[in-house]
Amino acid sequence: MNYLRTGAEIYEESFRIIRDETDLARFPEDVSRVVVRMVHAAGATDIADDVAFTPAVVARANAALRAGAAILCDSSMVATGIITSRLPRSNDVICHIKDPALAEVARREGITKTMAAVDLWLPRLEGAVVAIGNAPTALFRLLEVVRATGVRPAAVVGIPVGFVGAAESKEALAANDLGLEYLVVRGRRGGSAMTVAAVNAIASTDELTNTSRQD
Amino acid sequence: MNYLRTGAEIYEESFRIIRDETDLARFPEDVSRVVVRMVHAAGATDIADDVAFTPAVVARANAALRAGAAILCDSSMVATGIITSRLPRSNDVICHIKDPALAEVARREGITKTMAAVDLWLPRLEGAVVAIGNAPTALFRLLEVVRATGVRPAAVVGIPVGFVGAAESKEALAANDLGLEYLVVRGRRGGSAMTVAAVNAIASTDELTNTSRQD
Repeated sequence: MNYLRTGAEIYEESFRIIRDETDLARFPEDVSRVVVRMVHAAGATDIADDVAFTPAVVARANAALRAGAAILCDSSMVATGIITSRLPRSNDVICHIKDPALAEVARREGITKTMAAVDLWLPRLEGAVVAIGNAPTALFRLLEVVRATGVRPAAVVGIPVGFVGAAESKEALAANDLGLEYLVVRGRRGGSAMTVAAVNAIASTDELTNTSRQD
Repeated sequence: MNYLRTGAEIYEESFRIIRDETDLARFPEDVSRVVVRMVHAAGATDIADDVAFTPAVVARANAALRAGAAILCDSSMVATGIITSRLPRSNDVICHIKDPALAEVARREGITKTMAAVDLWLPRLEGAVVAIGNAPTALFRLLEVVRATGVRPAAVVGIPVGFVGAAESKEALAANDLGLEYLVVRGRRGGSAMTVAAVNAIASTDELTNTSRQD
């Protein structure tokens, strides 16, 4: 069969197509570069139309990573997808969802395991980069924790997916009066792949090598 | 904030919405159940319109898992997302992409690391369940390996994503004359989340508990 067989060729052609077909005019340059990666991960150029953000979100998140901030993830797939070799300070990538104690906490408090896992972020939350790519309840809970404690992450990549609460949780983040920097994809669409693509793009400006997945 | 806070409620409402909004009429019952999970993972009901499949794919893949087949994955995110506790026979979940030897093999042969990783599947490929959720070159290579060796997996969940080769690789799978059972999402869309959702749904018929991600 005839197809491109090297990672560099595939990336170059992919990003050429994406830039050709996607309306990126409204994004600052650094956000635009991240959106290109999100479109790539989704296989859908119209994802760009649903992106909402604060103008400094990429700069703030990148600066936090360069200062050694942890990355707090709601799902194992998000944590796994982050390419640790590209992180500037061997930053900790933290996900509590497989903690066996969560099920009991969730049952006792009448909340999702995801929410119980977010509560465990608190000691590392100040100045962290939050990456939510699965569960709307993680994003709702984060907003509650920030409001209750005053502890603030440096930036929130909030891209949960789904039919119940996903759109609403992202609207709540975009409307936050807590001073949170954010990057979201409005609506039902989202997920771990887009979230990981955003974090990896924020961590490294080297577009053609910023992944270990296809190379 | 006011939102649903228990996994069971969230799943029940999610699947109610999906079944209400998605045209599932053309699918056999077992495939329909898998497509519902894929729609859920994508946050997009129109994914269902792009699904192509062989009628026996879910039954064959489920039977293979019950017989102890390995699951061969192209990416770490796919391997991580598969809920091992739901697998019927503690089946092996195999992904070679982080093997440090791959980079050298790929450079020497002028292929992607993903393709080199697929070549390593061969000793476990006969009767296996293949789950490709990232790289088109993994799917192209699989077809080459099956044609060259005559070794056949029980079923191929082939849902790579992207702008270069993704649509083409899935069309090649759907047009295969190798006797491969398949489940694909035509076009550019795809990814690890949909692939994982399909495999987890194939492995377990318990819809409301078939995930550890949001519970």
